[in-house]
Amino acid sequence: MKKLINDPQDVVAESLDGFALVHADLVRLRTDPTFVTRATGPVEGKVGLVSGGGSGHEPLHAGFVGLGMLDAAVPGAVFTSPTPDQIAPAVTAVDGGAGVLTIVKNYTGDVLNFETAAELAEAEGTTVRQVLVNDDVAVEDSLYTAGRRGVAGTLAVEKIAGAAAERGDDLDAVAAVAERVVANVRTMGVALTACTVPHVGRPSFDLPDDEVEIGIGIHGEPGRHRVGLEGADAITEHLLTPVADDLALARGEKVLLLVNGMGGTPLSELYVVYRRARALLGERGVEVTRSLVGSYVTSLEMQGASVTVLRLDDETTALWDAPVHTAALRW
Amino acid sequence: MKKLINDPQDVVAESLDGFALVHADLVRLRTDPTFVTRATGPVEGKVGLVSGGGSGHEPLHAGFVGLGMLDAAVPGAVFTSPTPDQIAPAVTAVDGGAGVLTIVKNYTGDVLNFETAAELAEAEGTTVRQVLVNDDVAVEDSLYTAGRRGVAGTLAVEKIAGAAAERGDDLDAVAAVAERVVANVRTMGVALTACTVPHVGRPSFDLPDDEVEIGIGIHGEPGRHRVGLEGADAITEHLLTPVADDLALARGEKVLLLVNGMGGTPLSELYVVYRRARALLGERGVEVTRSLVGSYVTSLEMQGASVTVLRLDDETTALWDAPVHTAALRW
Repeated sequence: MKKLINDPQDVVAESLDGFALVHADLVRLRTDPTFVTRATGPVEGKVGLVSGGGSGHEPLHAGFVGLGMLDAAVPGAVFTSPTPDQIAPAVTAVDGGAGVLTIVKNYTGDVLNFETAAELAEAEGTTVRQVLVNDDVAVEDSLYTAGRRGVAGTLAVEKIAGAAAERGDDLDAVAAVAERVVANVRTMGVALTACTVPHVGRPSFDLPDDEVEIGIGIHGEPGRHRVGLEGADAITEHLLTPVADDLALARGEKVLLLVNGMGGTPLSELYVVYRRARALLGERGVEVTRSLVGSYVTSLEMQGASVTVLRLDDETTALWDAPVHTAALRW
Repeated sequence: MKKLINDPQDVVAESLDGFALVHADLVRLRTDPTFVTRATGPVEGKVGLVSGGGSGHEPLHAGFVGLGMLDAAVPGAVFTSPTPDQIAPAVTAVDGGAGVLTIVKNYTGDVLNFETAAELAEAEGTTVRQVLVNDDVAVEDSLYTAGRRGVAGTLAVEKIAGAAAERGDDLDAVAAVAERVVANVRTMGVALTACTVPHVGRPSFDLPDDEVEIGIGIHGEPGRHRVGLEGADAITEHLLTPVADDLALARGEKVLLLVNGMGGTPLSELYVVYRRARALLGERGVEVTRSLVGSYVTSLEMQGASVTVLRLDDETTALWDAPVHTAALRW
């Protein structure tokens, strides 16, 4: 295992320390329990937005804390859900009196712990709503999931719901637009290499040098099937086709296309994938009106990428375009 | 070789195609010869800024084209200088009548080709000045270099000179501030793994599983020495100490600290390195007043990082803070 880390037990805490030092203008790191909030807040009357999950997917979620996106992020150990005792204080800390929406990727541990945390926060007088993100079309049930997994589409949910909260929508309205994004976003990923969880010390799965795993999960969970090492165009088609089919995209529809790196993939390769995904959407008569390319929802140092398509309407487009000022997204 | 590419000969062109599609609001891709300019321009009376070099270091340089930074970027083949016939048209294309500054990383091929291009552009009536970036303290001469190599410090030169050009400084003044950045910026990097040039198909060097290369170049050129796989804190000290010593930083000085990923390193690890580098600077009484952490000057999928320190003064701080709107840097 070759990593720029010290003791594997300290990697999350040390990384968060560095993150909070770099972005002191944007965030505050709370400890005991550990979570990240905006540098100021809560904002009176604004719906609070909280997300979180296992670490190892950086910049998700702490990198999305800031104006126009999350109010707090709750990082667990690597690939391990944060605890209810950790989530609940984050939820109450960002309650400006208008309630809090939690955005939860659909993994059994996360769902359970966020639900328990919601009960704890409700007992403290905070109204909590929850939205589950399950955008991964690869498999129905998986290693850590009943139903589909939540992956890179989470970014779109957090951005668009965050903009709705920022403009003053109430809790029902923010939850509704978040659910609308969930209903219209789909993702599928590919792994070229496995990743290694620091405290485990060995790759999470074996992948021969001449195969890639189509439909990989962001924790290295098995996907749909393995194929030989094909060119990027062929691999991109394996990803884009099920995504577009599942969305039942019609000619003339407008979409956001997100090509996301898994952590160890150079940016130059993501643009190669984007180019092909966009061409394939074009062949279907689908217009890409918004785009994002980069490593946003990662799996440690895994090489690979995912393709996310979000069906847009006028309102979600405007909310996507609204100002955002976080460590990882800014416009 | 596992990469998300098609024919290795097409990777630069296909990646640029994708890049230009994603960032059509910011840039235009010119072909025959290939270079990238801002979407609009040249700006009458503004000094033009051009950089370039071999591909494989993305987002450098095309990701830095836009308001407040470069006017054009000229990408060669992977790890190969662009040609004079390719650079010269980029230089003349961004001449708004106030001349053009080229920012060149100190590699023999780049230096020669940018100089020849300058002569070609001068023959067309464009005044050209050139600044050489040589921030890598690791080695004096190297595989492709007489003198020190230009590495991640190039980002700081492009940002600060870009801001000077944007506010209307003349060519002498922009060149002078660029030279001041070069004089005050130092970098050193480490590789945990090698990278593979697509058209070569095998790793550019061998590195045992239990060793890292201190002082690595951004093309995988040899560094100073290899050490065993130590913790991130110890490795960071191997990088920061020669950088700070070479700058002869005095107590009370203010610096920009850039921790740069080599392409295959997760963001979480870069924050671990940042944390230690900042602490080491603190022990020297040096204050980190500006920070940047991310993968900006990369070596394909190499795992590793570099630490860059730039001694700041009031003017360079203000120019660093000035607005920038490019694909890779925006504030």
